[in-house]
Amino acid sequence: MSIKVGVLGARGRVGQAIVVGVNAAQDLELVAEIDRDTPLETLVEAGAEVIVDFTQPGVVMENLEYCIAKGIHCVVGTTGFDAQRLEQVEKWCAQDGAGHVLIAPNFAISAVLTMVLAKQAAKYFETAEVVEYHHPTKLDAPSGTAIHTAQGIAQARSEAGLGAMPDATEQALDGARGARVDGVPVHAVRTRGMVAHEEVIFGAQGQSLTIRQDSYDRSSFTPGVLVGVREIARHPGLVVGLEHYLGL
Amino acid sequence: MSIKVGVLGARGRVGQAIVVGVNAAQDLELVAEIDRDTPLETLVEAGAEVIVDFTQPGVVMENLEYCIAKGIHCVVGTTGFDAQRLEQVEKWCAQDGAGHVLIAPNFAISAVLTMVLAKQAAKYFETAEVVEYHHPTKLDAPSGTAIHTAQGIAQARSEAGLGAMPDATEQALDGARGARVDGVPVHAVRTRGMVAHEEVIFGAQGQSLTIRQDSYDRSSFTPGVLVGVREIARHPGLVVGLEHYLGL
Amino acid sequence: MSIKVGVLGARGRVGQAIVVGVNAAQDLELVAEIDRDTPLETLVEAGAEVIVDFTQPGVVMENLEYCIAKGIHCVVGTTGFDAQRLEQVEKWCAQDGAGHVLIAPNFAISAVLTMVLAKQAAKYFETAEVVEYHHPTKLDAPSGTAIHTAQGIAQARSEAGLGAMPDATEQALDGARGARVDGVPVHAVRTRGMVAHEEVIFGAQGQSLTIRQDSYDRSSFTPGVLVGVREIARHPGLVVGLEHYLGL
Amino acid sequence: MSIKVGVLGARGRVGQAIVVGVNAAQDLELVAEIDRDTPLETLVEAGAEVIVDFTQPGVVMENLEYCIAKGIHCVVGTTGFDAQRLEQVEKWCAQDGAGHVLIAPNFAISAVLTMVLAKQAAKYFETAEVVEYHHPTKLDAPSGTAIHTAQGIAQARSEAGLGAMPDATEQALDGARGARVDGVPVHAVRTRGMVAHEEVIFGAQGQSLTIRQDSYDRSSFTPGVLVGVREIARHPGLVVGLEHYLGL
Repeated sequence: MSIKVGVLGARGRVGQAIVVGVNAAQDLELVAEIDRDTPLETLVEAGAEVIVDFTQPGVVMENLEYCIAKGIHCVVGTTGFDAQRLEQVEKWCAQDGAGHVLIAPNFAISAVLTMVLAKQAAKYFETAEVVEYHHPTKLDAPSGTAIHTAQGIAQARSEAGLGAMPDATEQALDGARGARVDGVPVHAVRTRGMVAHEEVIFGAQGQSLTIRQDSYDRSSFTPGVLVGVREIARHPGLVVGLEHYLGL
Repeated sequence: MSIKVGVLGARGRVGQAIVVGVNAAQDLELVAEIDRDTPLETLVEAGAEVIVDFTQPGVVMENLEYCIAKGIHCVVGTTGFDAQRLEQVEKWCAQDGAGHVLIAPNFAISAVLTMVLAKQAAKYFETAEVVEYHHPTKLDAPSGTAIHTAQGIAQARSEAGLGAMPDATEQALDGARGARVDGVPVHAVRTRGMVAHEEVIFGAQGQSLTIRQDSYDRSSFTPGVLVGVREIARHPGLVVGLEHYLGL
Repeated sequence: MSIKVGVLGARGRVGQAIVVGVNAAQDLELVAEIDRDTPLETLVEAGAEVIVDFTQPGVVMENLEYCIAKGIHCVVGTTGFDAQRLEQVEKWCAQDGAGHVLIAPNFAISAVLTMVLAKQAAKYFETAEVVEYHHPTKLDAPSGTAIHTAQGIAQARSEAGLGAMPDATEQALDGARGARVDGVPVHAVRTRGMVAHEEVIFGAQGQSLTIRQDSYDRSSFTPGVLVGVREIARHPGLVVGLEHYLGL
Repeated sequence: MSIKVGVLGARGRVGQAIVVGVNAAQDLELVAEIDRDTPLETLVEAGAEVIVDFTQPGVVMENLEYCIAKGIHCVVGTTGFDAQRLEQVEKWCAQDGAGHVLIAPNFAISAVLTMVLAKQAAKYFETAEVVEYHHPTKLDAPSGTAIHTAQGIAQARSEAGLGAMPDATEQALDGARGARVDGVPVHAVRTRGMVAHEEVIFGAQGQSLTIRQDSYDRSSFTPGVLVGVREIARHPGLVVGLEHYLGL
């Protein structure tokens, strides 16, 4: 039996890709495409069980309030959630006791998995560094994902009782050893042609383990959204971050 | 408080490296180095809590029988365990109810983790392939590790209900698409200078995830042995394969 | 002083990208955009020195005849050139003694350079293998580029007097060691999400050299076309293949 | 017909490896192994055509003076050559008009080729960065090889009239974008288990080219020394740096 899915923001760039993705999945059935002028009631009439919301900060709260009240689960990629908004969503979920909401800043499953797997592997290695590669029009360095990954590694090392990494560097050009994020060196490469790529390099005696993620285009969020749609029934309440769905 | 460790086969090539590794670890204390002419009683006198056995098939069973009976935990890299031997070890463990034995064919932690992480990641991707790289004097292709990795991926895909991978190849040179291990393509590269390396490549819409393991020299088993020594107290009975210790 | 460029097929998908590329280059000046309904005379009136032709096999010969006669140099990515057509173009070039034509099947400069650099490096290494990665909707395996690369390596090895590569494989799963192209193993990986990628791995005692090329999207031909436009003045007559322009 | 080779410092760690390498090469014949107590005359008696010198700064000049005078070509990996010594060697070469000497600080052919190929490729790409990977006991960052590679790239870019690389970074953690060597970002990763590895990443529209070099162990100088032995007859006078032999 397939899951009945409604897409909010179905005419947007991302929404269109989600529509294609849901249509292509044999275990999912697209029952409603909602855009600015479509009333939310359409979702109930169509029997939607899960909605995917890639709309705007200005309308997403209204969407969520409606869907939670109607018992429709919500997979949300729309931005603009601060602590206050998250608290409000949590309340709505608690109210009827049956709200299921996933809000994730990053649905690229390979990027989320890199963070999750790196956290698991971290405690087995003496050293860990992160190298990320992006196009040269990116404004920040390192990327938010790389910083987040490094923080996860640092936390895992700390929990495992690992101390500072060995590093005998005595003579260095400024910047050569990268930026330190909670003690983990992070290097940012800016290369014309590349999109978004991240590599975590772990080292132990006589060996290394590398986990690398490559995003080649903007459609890379689709598989992660579909994981959300398929798994949300098992995750009551508000969950922030796709990593909590990866069952690892 | 440190763990008291005895090394059996301490004069062997591997044993020597283990001795160095145990001595370098602050949470471990080397209390006995056993070789051909050293009586096993030395272990009890020295208060060994865990032994590491890299000896010979001809003596390992005797070592295990003695240690299990004395309540000493056993981390074993010695080869030659068939079903009959494993059954015997299991019986010894059950007899006194307190036997802890880890027998592992591969202690290279990066290689074991690659298998474990690949199994976890497999269900989130449409495609998965394995490429392994070894020196050209290797006799078998693909490597046992690569075959084992592919089998794990295939099993994870099957459990997740994933079907055959997409592959539109119509016109191919013989061998171009690699060997199939339970449906997973495996490619073996033989390159002078390389040692032992394995790469798993997962693909989903717009992205890929790569897990790569490099072994640079023969000392790469040491970190995995130390994981065994540190964790064996929590794993009663006989465990075959380091992956079961990785808590993933 | 900038080079005056005309683009033929300027409304096509590729032509549009070329127009953008020429406009963005400070040393090039776009003087004419020719499409189906634009007379070729526009080129002369606009003072075009070089044209870029990404049109159709049905019109390209007429375009070339006209331009060569007018002393305009031609950078051509249009397909459909067989031996007879190439001979004809060569004659036109010889006729006025001043024809300059570059016809290339592949303008992705990173791919062309991979072939060129691999040929140079080949003679210094005992082993060489090619691994190519493409999306799973590709019909042929290995890719034409990978086959061409392997042939170049084989030729360079042969010219340097290198014999067969060492390979002790005795026991192999069918296909594990890849396809053989003139003795060079070539492996084809098919991964969802990837576009077009090729890796050449050379091995010598204690070391390896890897040359890797990644194409992330269809605009990757632009830089190579601009190399053609900038260099064509130094290459009289007909040249087939961008590699001959790379001055290596 | 094979080349007759003498090895000076034949009992040293490096010398022994050279002896093995020469013996394994079908086109080379080992005719003399010289060590501290062997008179240099042995070389002449044995008919040595080329010597390989991996000795000490204290004896190498004497060795070279003797060999050059006797018309024996010299491939030298011994360290300690300053400007004054090089000038002296040059004089000896000029004196009899037939001196052939190659002095190289780095005989790892994959590392030398990486520099050479990177210099060739540099002018075709908008961006170039270097990432090097070494064991964490290395004292300097980046490695001398990486600095040398970056300088070569910077020079090639300058000769081709390329300006500064695009980099929109506005907000960066200190060190994230690496060290700048003549404008080329260089990143140094320190990973337990690794030996010596270098990667050059070039980017252009829609594509990237990566040249990577891995040294797995200390024997990696042997192939480069053999190139020197085979090619030195074609290179009269003093040549400093194996790259000048690579015919690129």
